[in-house]
Amino acid sequence: MAGEGVKLLGYWASPFALRVKWALRLKGVEYEYQEEHLPNKSHLLLQSNPVHKKIPVLIHNGKPIAESLVILEYIDEVWKQNPLLPEDPRERAKARFWAKFADEKCVPAIMSTFSKEGEEQEKSAKEARECLKYLESGLNGKCYFGSDKIGFTDVAAAWIGIWGRMVGEIVNIKLIDEDAMPVLASWLHSVLEDPVLGECVPPYQTLLEHNKSFQKILLSKNSQKN
Amino acid sequence: MAGEGVKLLGYWASPFALRVKWALRLKGVEYEYQEEHLPNKSHLLLQSNPVHKKIPVLIHNGKPIAESLVILEYIDEVWKQNPLLPEDPRERAKARFWAKFADEKCVPAIMSTFSKEGEEQEKSAKEARECLKYLESGLNGKCYFGSDKIGFTDVAAAWIGIWGRMVGEIVNIKLIDEDAMPVLASWLHSVLEDPVLGECVPPYQTLLEHNKSFQKILLSKNSQKN
Repeated sequence: MAGEGVKLLGYWASPFALRVKWALRLKGVEYEYQEEHLPNKSHLLLQSNPVHKKIPVLIHNGKPIAESLVILEYIDEVWKQNPLLPEDPRERAKARFWAKFADEKCVPAIMSTFSKEGEEQEKSAKEARECLKYLESGLNGKCYFGSDKIGFTDVAAAWIGIWGRMVGEIVNIKLIDEDAMPVLASWLHSVLEDPVLGECVPPYQTLLEHNKSFQKILLSKNSQKN
Repeated sequence: MAGEGVKLLGYWASPFALRVKWALRLKGVEYEYQEEHLPNKSHLLLQSNPVHKKIPVLIHNGKPIAESLVILEYIDEVWKQNPLLPEDPRERAKARFWAKFADEKCVPAIMSTFSKEGEEQEKSAKEARECLKYLESGLNGKCYFGSDKIGFTDVAAAWIGIWGRMVGEIVNIKLIDEDAMPVLASWLHSVLEDPVLGECVPPYQTLLEHNKSFQKILLSKNSQKN
């Protein structure tokens, strides 16, 4: 399928860019990808997302869309094949609810586990596990959120399988326990092993080394604050 | 129009419940309203929103939907009359972008101006004003977000006209300056003076007294933390 002038401004190690790549791949939309150098963002990025000045930004026929969950909705509305959101309004609401939950609850708890130390870190890890347990409840025992194939919430939230594991490895705290969260673990496995999605995932070891360095920067910033 | 088993669990002083009331009124959907006593939430609320345990919750034909922005999307999909979101995918994305911006940037900055003191408060007020100036840019000089009638972002964000003014009055800091933000001020005036929406707005003086007491509780909690 022709890309119809589709360009994605992203960053290779960003889970928010990854979800947009996944959505475009599932739809079979070809796109031009522009990697951003975050300490020196391109003029195009600053111009396309003047409010947040952040990736990802999808530029379609010259017009930019920012905010990854908003981009997913846009992609689903413009390219109708392989719908991400189900048809039923209540099922759509559930999908949006869990995607929002992942962003507003799981992201801060996992990030905090990653960037804090000692008691604060333990507290954050406990909170992250509680959030993940809630997220698991949204699967309702099924393989994917909402249906029998990969959809909106899966694309929005399955980064947890990579970043959750990685944060656990870096800080030596297991966040996703397969015994405690078997349905969540099985879901993450199914999504991340999907051949179409798998192609976009950055190499784990490279990501791990990158985030080890990133964590050092965060910890050093925290210690300067205290 | 028949309510088709529509019930809203809300709280009179909540801007998040207010936006749902506004959407239902614009659609002409009749609904039963259940006021929640927040220190002692109803069994129905806890059962309907087990994850966040928060209002608002919309119960339609016995099935609950939580999270106010998700509820707005649901309402717009179920009751097609007087659409909240425009038809064009890019315009829909813009509406979602600004509603999200109001929740993620304006809410914390205004709340922080309300609940902090001294330097921290000044910093928050500056941030709140910057956020409101960005929000104003989303209007692009127009009367409403997106079109010539009240829609998604207007319903989602016009609480700022009430709570922004009120916070300003309580802490004696002007957040919405009509000279600095004439387009935003005019927009807020248009939405809040709308006869349909105006009916749902709680009486200003009652809300003001309520929030003065609420602020005292927040400040006392903060001083215990420090």
